[in-house]
Amino acid sequence: MLQQLDRTLADNLLRPRSVAIVGASDDRTKTTARPLQFLRAAGFEGAVYPVNPSRDTVLGERAWPSLDALPEVPDHVYVLTNAEPAIATVRECGRLGVPMVTILASGFGEEGHEGEERQARLQAAAREGGVRLVGPSSLGVTNPRTGMLLTANAAFAEEGLPEGDVFVASQSGSVIGALLSRGKTRGLGFAGLVSVGGEADLSIGELCEATLDDPGIGSYALFLESLQHSTDLASFAHAAHAAGKPVAVYKLGRSEEAAALSVSHTGALAGADAESDAFLAACGFARVDHLEALIEAPPLLARLGAVGNRSTARVGIITTTGGGAAVVVDQLATRGVSVVAPSSATLQAMTDAGCPVAPSLIVDLTLAGAKHELVRSAVSIMQDSGEFDLVLFVIGSSARSNPELAVRAIAECADGATPVAAFALPDALATLELLHHSGVPAFRTPEACADAVAAALGRRAPTVARTWPTPEADGAVVLNEVDSGRLLQEQGVPVVPGVVIGLDEVAQVAGSLPVTFPVAVKALSANLPHKSDAGGVVLGVADADGVVAAVDAIVAAVREHAGEVELDGVLVQEMATPGVVDTLVGYRVSPSVGPVVVLAAGGVLTELYKDSTMRLAPVDEAEALAMIGEVRALGQLHGFRGGPRGDVEALAAAIVAVSRLAVDRPDVVEAEMNPLSVRTEGQGVVALDALVRVAAQGEQSSPSSSLSGTS
Amino acid sequence: MLQQLDRTLADNLLRPRSVAIVGASDDRTKTTARPLQFLRAAGFEGAVYPVNPSRDTVLGERAWPSLDALPEVPDHVYVLTNAEPAIATVRECGRLGVPMVTILASGFGEEGHEGEERQARLQAAAREGGVRLVGPSSLGVTNPRTGMLLTANAAFAEEGLPEGDVFVASQSGSVIGALLSRGKTRGLGFAGLVSVGGEADLSIGELCEATLDDPGIGSYALFLESLQHSTDLASFAHAAHAAGKPVAVYKLGRSEEAAALSVSHTGALAGADAESDAFLAACGFARVDHLEALIEAPPLLARLGAVGNRSTARVGIITTTGGGAAVVVDQLATRGVSVVAPSSATLQAMTDAGCPVAPSLIVDLTLAGAKHELVRSAVSIMQDSGEFDLVLFVIGSSARSNPELAVRAIAECADGATPVAAFALPDALATLELLHHSGVPAFRTPEACADAVAAALGRRAPTVARTWPTPEADGAVVLNEVDSGRLLQEQGVPVVPGVVIGLDEVAQVAGSLPVTFPVAVKALSANLPHKSDAGGVVLGVADADGVVAAVDAIVAAVREHAGEVELDGVLVQEMATPGVVDTLVGYRVSPSVGPVVVLAAGGVLTELYKDSTMRLAPVDEAEALAMIGEVRALGQLHGFRGGPRGDVEALAAAIVAVSRLAVDRPDVVEAEMNPLSVRTEGQGVVALDALVRVAAQGEQSSPSSSLSGTS
Repeated sequence: MLQQLDRTLADNLLRPRSVAIVGASDDRTKTTARPLQFLRAAGFEGAVYPVNPSRDTVLGERAWPSLDALPEVPDHVYVLTNAEPAIATVRECGRLGVPMVTILASGFGEEGHEGEERQARLQAAAREGGVRLVGPSSLGVTNPRTGMLLTANAAFAEEGLPEGDVFVASQSGSVIGALLSRGKTRGLGFAGLVSVGGEADLSIGELCEATLDDPGIGSYALFLESLQHSTDLASFAHAAHAAGKPVAVYKLGRSEEAAALSVSHTGALAGADAESDAFLAACGFARVDHLEALIEAPPLLARLGAVGNRSTARVGIITTTGGGAAVVVDQLATRGVSVVAPSSATLQAMTDAGCPVAPSLIVDLTLAGAKHELVRSAVSIMQDSGEFDLVLFVIGSSARSNPELAVRAIAECADGATPVAAFALPDALATLELLHHSGVPAFRTPEACADAVAAALGRRAPTVARTWPTPEADGAVVLNEVDSGRLLQEQGVPVVPGVVIGLDEVAQVAGSLPVTFPVAVKALSANLPHKSDAGGVVLGVADADGVVAAVDAIVAAVREHAGEVELDGVLVQEMATPGVVDTLVGYRVSPSVGPVVVLAAGGVLTELYKDSTMRLAPVDEAEALAMIGEVRALGQLHGFRGGPRGDVEALAAAIVAVSRLAVDRPDVVEAEMNPLSVRTEGQGVVALDALVRVAAQGEQSSPSSSLSGTS
Repeated sequence: MLQQLDRTLADNLLRPRSVAIVGASDDRTKTTARPLQFLRAAGFEGAVYPVNPSRDTVLGERAWPSLDALPEVPDHVYVLTNAEPAIATVRECGRLGVPMVTILASGFGEEGHEGEERQARLQAAAREGGVRLVGPSSLGVTNPRTGMLLTANAAFAEEGLPEGDVFVASQSGSVIGALLSRGKTRGLGFAGLVSVGGEADLSIGELCEATLDDPGIGSYALFLESLQHSTDLASFAHAAHAAGKPVAVYKLGRSEEAAALSVSHTGALAGADAESDAFLAACGFARVDHLEALIEAPPLLARLGAVGNRSTARVGIITTTGGGAAVVVDQLATRGVSVVAPSSATLQAMTDAGCPVAPSLIVDLTLAGAKHELVRSAVSIMQDSGEFDLVLFVIGSSARSNPELAVRAIAECADGATPVAAFALPDALATLELLHHSGVPAFRTPEACADAVAAALGRRAPTVARTWPTPEADGAVVLNEVDSGRLLQEQGVPVVPGVVIGLDEVAQVAGSLPVTFPVAVKALSANLPHKSDAGGVVLGVADADGVVAAVDAIVAAVREHAGEVELDGVLVQEMATPGVVDTLVGYRVSPSVGPVVVLAAGGVLTELYKDSTMRLAPVDEAEALAMIGEVRALGQLHGFRGGPRGDVEALAAAIVAVSRLAVDRPDVVEAEMNPLSVRTEGQGVVALDALVRVAAQGEQSSPSSSLSGTS
């Protein structure tokens, strides 16, 4: 392994000096014959060793009976055999000192118990031998810059694969071929395309991070099916940001149906897409929803930098087709992107430059015409105005028929003070290519254009943590309401004052309770999370006699509805006066993305409207305020319909406090305040009910069973 | 004009025997030189007469000094001059008997008072001369089938314009060129493309309807900026349905920003997109949201017929790329389209055919491979299973590299029992063309694919009325609450019982009111629509003394808040017991699409959530029930969280009743019941407040000012 001392993982991955193909077939029609053909057709300059114990030659080349028969230790081995022989090959690679192996076979982790066991043996073989793995189920690793096409994906059979500075990593093998072909058609090239497969060793994040030093890589495009190994993605996010290399992501699972198709596990369950969104945003990745936007966005990201607020970023539109521009405006506006009109000063400057434009939301050059000098002047004036974060040109028929007019002018503005991008209304692949090579991000459909622009403008510097608590959810215990409330109160969230009474002391203490009537009386048990449904809550109790009666009613009701539940006592809480609005504030540790904090509209409508927002936890006050702005029902906090304003600052502080469980209480699996009542301005917030679940082995309060204040 | 007796409007539009180009330029670089060049390049076989009074020749052809100097009366004249001379030309065409004129110039209706006046003169000239007009602002009329390229759109300069059976009509001139080029790239052709311009005479609906007899036209693709002349579109909708020719529509204005860019008028205001949606759905048009879907959808519509319910239509997915299929499933599911899994019997049939497939939501042939016979068997089995309304094939890399495998097999299944459509994950334009020409609808992006599929599955037979009332909104008067309630009660909607008291008789009658206490006391005035805000409502009044006190309070409050308002008296209404849920039911006559009925969640959340649905009025019970299903808050009607069930049938009946104002009361401009309280099952609904606005000249109740029951 001495030869590897000066070689990085990325070197072996993308720039191997020599590769071996284990299981290379002599039958040209077979998948396993592809890598050798592709490498030769692309003129890969390193050594290539087909390994096939049953043949002397493969596709006219000398075949080697085994890896240890090779004249050198290859830097990268692609194993095309079935699963079991692939494990044996990895073991052999370890013995020989092969640093990097990519595995085509499936039949590992994703296939039940037997597959998991096989995957464990594969991982052990790699670990013991010091071998790094791509796969299993990897369609391969490619570097179009060097002809290093170590892949079985048929898309790489073509000539003239486009080189570029975008690095693609995908959890779907067929997608790398699809993106390659879609890029090739309009001149978008790649610095590498990798099918990461089952990520038994190298995760997609780890693999991308390893390539960050490559000066030929300018940006990343990731196709994700699930968020396994998310800490690696978080690490990559910070490193990519530090390197100034932006990342676009397409993530499957907007729908529950597609999430269920993913090969994975609990992370891909209902509601998980909100987690994915929160995670990818916290990573500073630009998540797009159109497949072609995944390759169209990176050049835009590279040009725009991190703008950071989709709703305040200012997009200026200039066009030679009013109808086409309106299509783009429509698409942008429905994604919350603000198209802003040029100022009168800017319009005057255009008139002075011989390019009169009517005042409108957009700069429409239709009447002036798609003349070269005129378009260049108009674009430059917009770029120099300081009124826009992005100038977007919607090109009409000249994009196809006369690219020497508007298109060339736009290309000449590539390096202006403000970034310029373009969408061509007609089919105009040559124009897209010309613009791209001139440094102008260009788009093929209005929808992908708006998608990429919205994603780019919404991107921010990464805030994701590098590590996070992972409390064991199996066997976690629910705290009763008093203990839950106390934990949250310690965390800094006001909880409604109350006292606990043992069932045997009710008559004795009811007359001397340190609370102000009216009160609510609630059954207290960690085993009764839905106590209202079980008749465990009596509201508006006016006096001591009422408390005694309420306890009797509760005991009877709980016995009827949930006979097996032993009560820890009852909780007597002061009735809070109604606030401006009820909210739900929740916290949980997601198996896939770690701690998240959720804010939702409280009450019955939470469920009907799914009116909620989520962030990775912890959040700061600014982020908490942004969350409040995203829940529609909380519009009521701003003096809705003449009503009082709510205490937004206190709500934000409560969200921050709860979110900091991620830092302060790594044992907490889940916490929920429902409702958290928001009072009028200056009057704070108060949790009226609380439920906390903590990991069994973690720090844990013991259930209370005697009189004790919780305030 | 005798020569025209046997000619239809469509003949003169699309198949003129002779055309004249007034204002044809000799300068090849000018827009006005284009039509002659395009006609010649495309080999148009009719006579072409360039008219240019200042030249003897134009582009090497004989030029004519005027229309009356021509040797014959042309069937179709394209006028390329400015606005004023264009009017003069239309007059001359009338004198000469020219039946059809298309006008390029702008400067008419859309440009303020002067433009409107000019448009009126243009219309008069056409009417008087019996000339039909396309435009003004029309980029032209084309028929690729005959080389009839009477257009100034640069996109038609190309050779090999694709012929097909889709007829495009667009309110944006540049869009016809964009669709042409995007179709050409992948073999989708056209039976005509028309830029309808400002629709001063021929509206887009009228123009399309005129072409319905053309056997070469199989379907329509409409690009709309606004819904002017919507009765013509409604007429076209019925005629197109009768002719079995489906219609796809792309309509600008999903956002308010883009609506404001439209050249039009009041129809394009906030909220208008819901009206557009309701109108286009009632027309049986398939509205798509992706520009390319506008040309991709028609072949699918033609193959599918009217399926009619997006959420119950069953789509089966079969694929050679699991990742690509998951992308499509995601896109379909987020649009409410149900992807259904094949039954075990279907899977068994595939196994028996040598094509084993693992049970899943999709049929994944990845392991079996993209082999011709195998793909054909699998698709046929799905088509014959009766389990799907559409079989959608997601083709992997073979779409580009080996179309003779899966692609050919799919093409061979074009005429199977169930329609089959396809999306190719890689860029594979040749494959899309092959599939299209084989009769398999094919899609270039997963997003447009899902968009078109959703639109196609949601399409229904037209229900839009052919005419509708258009009460004059200017000067319409608001009825007070009693008269509003009476009108709605007559219409069949229960209104809460109440009596009216004159302000001067309160003390006298308060003791003998024919109502059950408690009651609500409300200021009564047509000029106080927001009476609660003005202190004009007192709820929960317990007895006669309370009524007197309430009236005093109301009079004082109204005097303070709205001193100028004269009260007609007060309305004393019984307090309805709280229902299961409050709704808002509204009716209005939209200037663009006619009467609509709206159902929304009642109360404060209506405004925050915009939780509402709209249909053209009138609706039947089934449609009303569908509306109820679309308002999320009304999920509470179905026994939400253990609560009681609401009287859904009574709500539906009320919606139907209100919607029938469109038939029964053509004078009503607007009506709203807010809230309409829905009681428990069997207990009906009741309107607690009502507001009706009627046209000034229409039938109208007189304001009540004395004791009179409203129940």
